[in-house]
Amino acid sequence: MNGENAKGNFQVIFMPSGRQVEVESGVSVIKAARLAGVHINASCGGSGVCGKCRIILESGTLAGGKSEKLSEAEYEEGYRQACIAIIDGNVTLRVTAESELAAGSMATEVPVRHQARMHVFNIEDLKEEGVFVPPIEKRVLHLSAPTHDDNKADAGRIIQGLKNEHNERGMITTLPVLKKMRSALRAKDFVVTVTLSRSVSEGGKSHIVNIQPGDVSHRNYGLAFDIGTTTVHGSLVDHQTGKLVARRADYNAQISYGEDVISRIVHAEKPKGLQLMHELVINTINGLIAKLLLKNDVERDEITSITLAGNTTMTHLLLGLEPHNIRRAPYVPVSTFFPPIRARDIDLELPLRAVALVYPSISSYVGGDIIAGVMGSGMYRTEAVTLYVDIGTNAEIVIGNRDWLVCAACSAGPAFEGGGITHGMRAAAGAIEDFGLNPATYEPMNITIGNKPCIGICGSGLLVIVATLFEYGVIDGKGKFNRNLETPRIREGRSGYEYVLTWEAEAGGDSDIVINEVDIENFIRAKAAIYAGCKTLIEGVGLQVTDLEQIILAGAFGSYIDLDSAMTVGLLPEVDPGRVLYVGNGSLLGSWMSEMSNHIRRDVVEVVRNMTSFELSEVTDFKDQYIGSLFLPHTDVSLFPETSARLKKSD
Amino acid sequence: MNGENAKGNFQVIFMPSGRQVEVESGVSVIKAARLAGVHINASCGGSGVCGKCRIILESGTLAGGKSEKLSEAEYEEGYRQACIAIIDGNVTLRVTAESELAAGSMATEVPVRHQARMHVFNIEDLKEEGVFVPPIEKRVLHLSAPTHDDNKADAGRIIQGLKNEHNERGMITTLPVLKKMRSALRAKDFVVTVTLSRSVSEGGKSHIVNIQPGDVSHRNYGLAFDIGTTTVHGSLVDHQTGKLVARRADYNAQISYGEDVISRIVHAEKPKGLQLMHELVINTINGLIAKLLLKNDVERDEITSITLAGNTTMTHLLLGLEPHNIRRAPYVPVSTFFPPIRARDIDLELPLRAVALVYPSISSYVGGDIIAGVMGSGMYRTEAVTLYVDIGTNAEIVIGNRDWLVCAACSAGPAFEGGGITHGMRAAAGAIEDFGLNPATYEPMNITIGNKPCIGICGSGLLVIVATLFEYGVIDGKGKFNRNLETPRIREGRSGYEYVLTWEAEAGGDSDIVINEVDIENFIRAKAAIYAGCKTLIEGVGLQVTDLEQIILAGAFGSYIDLDSAMTVGLLPEVDPGRVLYVGNGSLLGSWMSEMSNHIRRDVVEVVRNMTSFELSEVTDFKDQYIGSLFLPHTDVSLFPETSARLKKSD
Repeated sequence: MNGENAKGNFQVIFMPSGRQVEVESGVSVIKAARLAGVHINASCGGSGVCGKCRIILESGTLAGGKSEKLSEAEYEEGYRQACIAIIDGNVTLRVTAESELAAGSMATEVPVRHQARMHVFNIEDLKEEGVFVPPIEKRVLHLSAPTHDDNKADAGRIIQGLKNEHNERGMITTLPVLKKMRSALRAKDFVVTVTLSRSVSEGGKSHIVNIQPGDVSHRNYGLAFDIGTTTVHGSLVDHQTGKLVARRADYNAQISYGEDVISRIVHAEKPKGLQLMHELVINTINGLIAKLLLKNDVERDEITSITLAGNTTMTHLLLGLEPHNIRRAPYVPVSTFFPPIRARDIDLELPLRAVALVYPSISSYVGGDIIAGVMGSGMYRTEAVTLYVDIGTNAEIVIGNRDWLVCAACSAGPAFEGGGITHGMRAAAGAIEDFGLNPATYEPMNITIGNKPCIGICGSGLLVIVATLFEYGVIDGKGKFNRNLETPRIREGRSGYEYVLTWEAEAGGDSDIVINEVDIENFIRAKAAIYAGCKTLIEGVGLQVTDLEQIILAGAFGSYIDLDSAMTVGLLPEVDPGRVLYVGNGSLLGSWMSEMSNHIRRDVVEVVRNMTSFELSEVTDFKDQYIGSLFLPHTDVSLFPETSARLKKSD
Repeated sequence: MNGENAKGNFQVIFMPSGRQVEVESGVSVIKAARLAGVHINASCGGSGVCGKCRIILESGTLAGGKSEKLSEAEYEEGYRQACIAIIDGNVTLRVTAESELAAGSMATEVPVRHQARMHVFNIEDLKEEGVFVPPIEKRVLHLSAPTHDDNKADAGRIIQGLKNEHNERGMITTLPVLKKMRSALRAKDFVVTVTLSRSVSEGGKSHIVNIQPGDVSHRNYGLAFDIGTTTVHGSLVDHQTGKLVARRADYNAQISYGEDVISRIVHAEKPKGLQLMHELVINTINGLIAKLLLKNDVERDEITSITLAGNTTMTHLLLGLEPHNIRRAPYVPVSTFFPPIRARDIDLELPLRAVALVYPSISSYVGGDIIAGVMGSGMYRTEAVTLYVDIGTNAEIVIGNRDWLVCAACSAGPAFEGGGITHGMRAAAGAIEDFGLNPATYEPMNITIGNKPCIGICGSGLLVIVATLFEYGVIDGKGKFNRNLETPRIREGRSGYEYVLTWEAEAGGDSDIVINEVDIENFIRAKAAIYAGCKTLIEGVGLQVTDLEQIILAGAFGSYIDLDSAMTVGLLPEVDPGRVLYVGNGSLLGSWMSEMSNHIRRDVVEVVRNMTSFELSEVTDFKDQYIGSLFLPHTDVSLFPETSARLKKSD
C-alpha cells in the first residue's frame, strides 16, 4: 500500500500544526495525537460520550469515529470522535477549534513522549551467542532388527544407535521409556524418535526420557510460567525452534484469599491452608496448560519440561513449602534453591517424565521472578552496567553486569497498582492510562484502556497525570495544587484540593473522577521509595547515576511507563531514554529462556550464588535518600539536569 | 560345659567302630552317623516308622529318640531311634547289629563327606578393604536459630551446618525434605538429623533425602531382596552398621501362573498379564517388607533404599517391562541396565524418597541374580581365578577374577529341582536330602528334611543317591543297575530297573519310593550339561580345570551339595574341596552388599560392562563336551584323578 512503511505502520498528520506521527494500525486517533504532542479535549475517555474530541478527516481513511454526538451531516462533512476513530491507513486530520479550545496545538516545547524500547528477543542472536542450547532434544533413529549375531537388549540397541547415528554418548534410560521401548521399536520397523533431556551440569549425562515410534522429531514442547501474586502467565515453547508458540494468562486463583503475599501466607498458616493455597495456584496452572495445549493442537504427552518463576512466597506455595517465616523477622524462607522436581509431584497434569524447574530466589523479598528477569533479559551476560527495576507493590532492583550483581527490594506501597489512590484501579478497561493537558485551558485529554468511558486511574495513567500536572505548573514540587488557576476542574474536595479528570455525566461510573493532593502525596511516597532504592543501591556499590549504561524495566507497570513522565517526577534516575529497555514480563521471559537454553539453566545457579543482597532498611543513607526524593523531581535538581532544563524552558 | 568346644559343637562317638564326629547341637543321630561315615539302616526317613535305625545310648545325653517301635524297657536300656534322636551334648552311641545288618560300619575307605565351606561375610574385613562405604548416612546437626544478621534460608542453614559440622559439601536438597524442613528445624531447637544419599558416581553430589527433629542417627535402614522365580527372599539392612538385621522369605505369588520363567512370560503376554505379573511379585515383596518391619520394630519411614536382584525375566516383571522377546529367538530383553528408580514408581510401599536399585543383567539368560552373586561373593575383587556356579533349572556360570570375567548359561533341565524324576520333589519336609548305603546288604540310610517319613527325593538327595549307588557298584558309569546284586531293593519296575529307597509301608505316601534308570539318565543329562558348560567356558578362556583356584557355589541347591558326590558323579570339576566356597543365596548377598556399600554400587556397572558373554550353544566344543560328560564321572577319567583313585580303591 502506498505510504505504508516497512513495519506496517501508518503516518498521521495533524493540522493545523502539521505535526506528524507514525503509528501502528489500530491505534486510536486520540492516542496518535498524544504521541504527536497534539492536544485534543477528551474528557470522557472514550465511547464518544462527551462528544468533545471532534476532529475532521481531511484525507485518507479512518475506521469508526461515529457517535450520537455527531449528526449525519457532520459525519458526512468528515467529523469524527477522536477517541473512537481508529487509524487504518495514512491520514491527515484537522483538530477543530472546539476540541482544541485554545490556540493551536500544545506548545512546541512539549516533546514527543518516549516509551521504553521493547527488548526484542531474537533467537538467532542467541544462537550466534551460543546461548541457544535446547535442554530437550529429539533424535530419530533408524535401527536394524535384532539378529542371532546381534541380540543386544533393546535399550542397548538404542544407546548404540544414538552413538552411531548422532554421536550421542553416555545416555541414561528411564523407567517410563523402558516400559514403552519394546513396543515402540517394533511399531514402525525399528524407526523411533527418542527425546533426550540434557544434564544441567556440564559434561553430565543425558537421559532418554521418551521414545515414540517413527519420526516425530518436530513435535517437542515445553512450558514456561510466571506465577504472579495476581496473575499467572503461561506460555508454550517449541523446544526444536526455541520459539514461544502461544501465551495465556489467568488470575491466580489464590486471589480470593487476599491480594498480597502477606494475606496468602496468613491463609497458608491455617489448618490445611497451605494445601489449599498450593491447590489453588496449581489449578490455575493446570487450567492454563489445558488451554495452551487445546488451542495449539499439542498433546499433553508432547510436553517434557516446565519452568516456573515467581516471587518467594508464590514459589513456596507452588511447592507446598511452609511460608510462615517469610512474613516474620528475620524473614527466613525455607529455601532459595529448588531441585528439579517431577512435575507430577507438585500435582501438575503433565506426563510422568516431565520435570519442573523452579527459579531460585535470593531472599524472602527478592524472588525467582527477579532472577528470571535477570537471566531472561541477558543482564547477567552484558558488559554494560545495568539497572534492572521491576515496579510493583514491592520494587525489586538489581544492579550489575556479567561480572557482579547486587540486588535489593523496597516497599513502594500499592499506589502503582491503584491502591491508596481515590480513583485508583488496576490496568483494566476504562482506566486512564495516558493523559494530556491543554496548557491554556487545563482541559484534559484522557486516554483510557479500551477507549471505554473513564472509571478510574491505573498506575501508568497516574504517573503521566502527576508528571503533566507538574510540568504545566498545575501542581508544585510538593504536589500541591496552584490555587490561582482559572478552571472549574481545580476545586477543593473532601480530601483537600483536587483536579476533576472526568465529570460524572461523562464518566463510566456515578461520580466525578478526580485526583487529589492525598493521592499525589501517596504517589510521591511510592516514587520516592523506588528512586531512593535505586540511588542507594547505585551508590552502595560505589557508582553514580551517570555510570548507568542501561536501565531495564520489567513488570506490568513497566510496559506502559512513559519515560519522560518517570524522569519528570523523579521515579527513575535520569538517563538517555534510548538506554532504557523494557522486557515485559521478566519472569515469564526468564522461564521461556530456561526452557530453550541449557546455558541459562546452568548459569542461573552461578548467578544466584554470586548475587549480593543489599538490605536497604539497614542503610541510614536510604532514609536520607528517601526524604530527599519526596519532591518532584527531587530536592537535588542536579540529579535531573535534562528534566530541570525542560521545565525551566516551559516556565 | 565339659567337652563342649569353642563353636558350641558336640562330639559324637559311634561304637563299635569308634568313629568320631563333631556336630552342632540339634543334628539328628542319623545325620551325625552319615557325617562320621557310619551306616545305620534307616528306611522310612524319620519319625521312627520303620523302627530299623536303633542305636544304644552308652554315655552322655540325647534328646528324643522314643517311638512306638521301642518298648519302655528298651528305652530304659538306652535304645533310641537314630532318625529322631537329637544331639544335645557329647555322647557315645553303639550301633546295633540289627540296624547295621552287616558287619561293622561302612568300609573305612569311605571318606567323611565334604560340604562346601560357607563363605562368612565379615563387615570388618570389608571395612579394612575400604569396601564398606554406606550409600545412606545420617548426620546430626546442632544449628543456631536465625537472627537478623544471619537470616539465610532454612535449607542454606542446613547446608552450611553440614559443611561446618561434618565437612560435607555440595549437598542437594529434595522436595520432601524441603516440605518438612521448617517444622523439623524448629521442633527440637534446631537440632536435626539429616539423611544423606551418596552419589554412585565418584565425586557426585550427595542428596539430602530426609530430615528429622533431634538426634535419630542410629535409626537408618535399607532393604535387600532376591526375586527368585520360586521364592522371594528379603532382608532388612542396618545402614549404620552394614549388618543384616533380619531375613524372611515367601513364595513368589506369580507361582500360581507356572513354575518357570517361560510360563510367566506367556502369562505376561496376555491382556493385562504384565500388570498382573508385576502386581503379584510386588505384593509378595510388600508383604515381606511389612513383616520385616513389624518383627524388627522398624518404621516404614526409616527405610531409605532397597536393592533387588533377580533373573532377567523376574527383573522385567518386577519393573513392568515387556518380557516377550526373552523367550523368542534371538532372545532380546528390553534392557540389561536399569536406572535408579523411585520405589513408589514400581508400587513398593516405601517412603517417597526411597530409591530402588535393580541389579543389571548380562542377557536374557544371565541375570541380575548372577551379577549380584559375583558382586556379593567378592569374586570380582579377587586375584584368584574363580569359577562361580549357580545351579538350578538353568545353570549360570561365571569364570574370572578382578581382571576379567566371562559368563555363560546352560539349561540343565529341572532334575535338580525334582523335575523329570519319578519321585523327585522340591527341598521340603520328607524329601531325602542325604543318603547312605550298607555296602554289604545294600540297605539304605535315608535322611529326610525335617526327619519326616520319606515322600520323595530332592536335588541334593538325588546327587548323593546316584553318587553312592555308583560308588558301591550298584549302578555303572552309564547309570545302569547291576542286575546281579542280591537284594530285594533292586527290581524291574515300570520304567526299567529301579532301587527301592523306602517301602510303601514305611513311606509318608502310598507307594514305594524308588529311583529308576530313567531318573538316573535324566540326572546324568543335567550334570553333563553343567559340567560341559563349566569345562567349555574354562577352555574357552584358554584355561584348564587345574588352573581353577576357587569354586564358588550359589543357589538353594548349592547350599546342600555334597562335594564328594558332586565330583564322584562328575557334576563339578574336581578340585581340592577346601577350595570350594558356598555363598548361599548369591543374589540376596549381592543386594545386601549394594545396600551397605557404595563401592559395590559403583563397581557393578564396570563389572557388567566388562563381562563377556559366552554363547555355549554356538560352540561345537560344547556338544562334544556334553557327550563326553554323559558318563559317571566322565568318559575321560583323567579329569577326575582323585575320584578315580578312590573308586578303584573301593572296588
